[in-house]
Amino acid sequence: MKYIQRNLLKITGLLLLVLLTACATSQPAPDPLLSWTDGPAKQQIIGFVTDVTDSNGSDFVPVSQRIATFDNDGTLWSEKPTYFQLLFIIDRVKSMAADHPEWKTTQPFQAVLENDMATLKASGEHGLIKLAMATHAGMTTQEFETIVSDWLTTARHPTTGKPYTQMVYQPMLELLDYLRANDFKTFIVSGGGLEFMRPWTEAVYGIPPDQVVGSSIETRYELRNGEPVLVRLPELHFVDDNVTKPVAINRFIGQRPILAFGNSDGDFEMLKWTTSGEGKRLGLIVHHTDAVREWAYDRESSEGRLVRGLDEADDNGWLVIDMARDWQVVYP
Amino acid sequence: MKYIQRNLLKITGLLLLVLLTACATSQPAPDPLLSWTDGPAKQQIIGFVTDVTDSNGSDFVPVSQRIATFDNDGTLWSEKPTYFQLLFIIDRVKSMAADHPEWKTTQPFQAVLENDMATLKASGEHGLIKLAMATHAGMTTQEFETIVSDWLTTARHPTTGKPYTQMVYQPMLELLDYLRANDFKTFIVSGGGLEFMRPWTEAVYGIPPDQVVGSSIETRYELRNGEPVLVRLPELHFVDDNVTKPVAINRFIGQRPILAFGNSDGDFEMLKWTTSGEGKRLGLIVHHTDAVREWAYDRESSEGRLVRGLDEADDNGWLVIDMARDWQVVYP
Repeated sequence: MKYIQRNLLKITGLLLLVLLTACATSQPAPDPLLSWTDGPAKQQIIGFVTDVTDSNGSDFVPVSQRIATFDNDGTLWSEKPTYFQLLFIIDRVKSMAADHPEWKTTQPFQAVLENDMATLKASGEHGLIKLAMATHAGMTTQEFETIVSDWLTTARHPTTGKPYTQMVYQPMLELLDYLRANDFKTFIVSGGGLEFMRPWTEAVYGIPPDQVVGSSIETRYELRNGEPVLVRLPELHFVDDNVTKPVAINRFIGQRPILAFGNSDGDFEMLKWTTSGEGKRLGLIVHHTDAVREWAYDRESSEGRLVRGLDEADDNGWLVIDMARDWQVVYP
Repeated sequence: MKYIQRNLLKITGLLLLVLLTACATSQPAPDPLLSWTDGPAKQQIIGFVTDVTDSNGSDFVPVSQRIATFDNDGTLWSEKPTYFQLLFIIDRVKSMAADHPEWKTTQPFQAVLENDMATLKASGEHGLIKLAMATHAGMTTQEFETIVSDWLTTARHPTTGKPYTQMVYQPMLELLDYLRANDFKTFIVSGGGLEFMRPWTEAVYGIPPDQVVGSSIETRYELRNGEPVLVRLPELHFVDDNVTKPVAINRFIGQRPILAFGNSDGDFEMLKWTTSGEGKRLGLIVHHTDAVREWAYDRESSEGRLVRGLDEADDNGWLVIDMARDWQVVYP
């Protein structure tokens, strides 16, 4: 009897241990922002998240209102020597050129084929839209998704030689994870094309397609051999930049974010809209200060031009992240 | 020693019991579709959900692709004697009339003020848009949200006397919950106004604002006394109906749903788009057959007109839900 009891005791104790291990949260959580320099910026971010998630605090925000929006180019991934979507367009023009002999003598296609960046830039917004429509329209949405996915697996960045999806910022990946671990819903709100981003944002950022907001062209539903398709049309539907970012946030998300992160004056109104709401808010700007590990640019840059953001950040209470100082690591 | 052992055994056993109770999932789940008649329709829905969530089965769908879209008017809530948003417009015209003396002699406002439904209907789409713009634009998005919320707390349905948010279908609330319990993301894709729906869909359906897709008007970002606002403009941005529902699904959700539920021919293309994808799919139609508990209408109705949906459901493999037969309860 005593023998049985002793063994039962052992077995029960073992079971107890197994269950305790299974039930209990074990270790203290590791630093969620490991790639961020320990300093005021990191402290302020963690302080904000701690405050809005403290159900006993005066700054508590219910889960359903924990909306965070992120610009993409220059905020989540690099944008030099120029926007990656423009590099995609250039590659597309070159690979489509055989079917378009007229492009050899038609601008701005000719400039692309001759690697004449000066003429290409001189073609301005009108020229870029022409290139975008020629390369982004005329196929179904499914075909375009395949084109983007295929390009990303083979294309390499002109100076780093990395795949573009590895030129995302490690500290931002950690911030996205940290926010989601605290029940934030994370959104992209970018000037980039909706359907240029959606094929890869879930795998790379953990942001599903329906949480991606961006610029778009018109599409048309039609039947082909009885099967429905959505055809991409060479007609702009919406450009998501500066004053239209709050418009898009309202249309797609339907709530004002409590945190917004950008890097250029194209994000100014998104930050203003976000931080003007009631209650605790956080506006953040990536300042590209790191010519060694990434690029250094702001006021004079054609990509990610940042003037008002720098001049008015203090007055607005926005946090300017100095890449060289605040990030221990840039790329994963 | 034996005494200590015996007591330790008891304590350990008790602890084990407590932990087992805490850890284990206890009871078998109650019927998730309690208000649905036990029969082929209910079986087919449960069978579909069981199949796509069985990770060992050939029809398994990963969580990230479990997208379900629902029409609103006539699918999630009633739409008789006419669309509830039109009843909102009528109430708004009446309450705004004092500030618009010209409406007494201007159609279609005069018809609304004189309860002349024949003239109102005769004004057609053009007349309705005029009324919609007069009542839905000219204020900020925040002001409009307050107007809608206030209206819903006081307005009562003309024949049932119920608040409109209680004229939602209990079986559909159960289906939404059931799908979400199986890691579906549930969306509304409605011809109704985006910002007419968003103030209440989370509380009523458990569908957050960013998962509501609908028709919209233009908005403009501006500063008022230094504070940003979004002003609603009297200009249509997008009408979400029939062939544009797949367009909106693609633009807002960015993935093809695997389940779609509608009730009128305005949902035909959404169902076609949904069920034409690869893998297991489910298309469903509410057939309003219950003149006693709700309304009975289909081919001849000006709201929820259903002709092709009935004629082509079988060929498309869509499930037609007979309200009188398949629903034990209509309203909560």
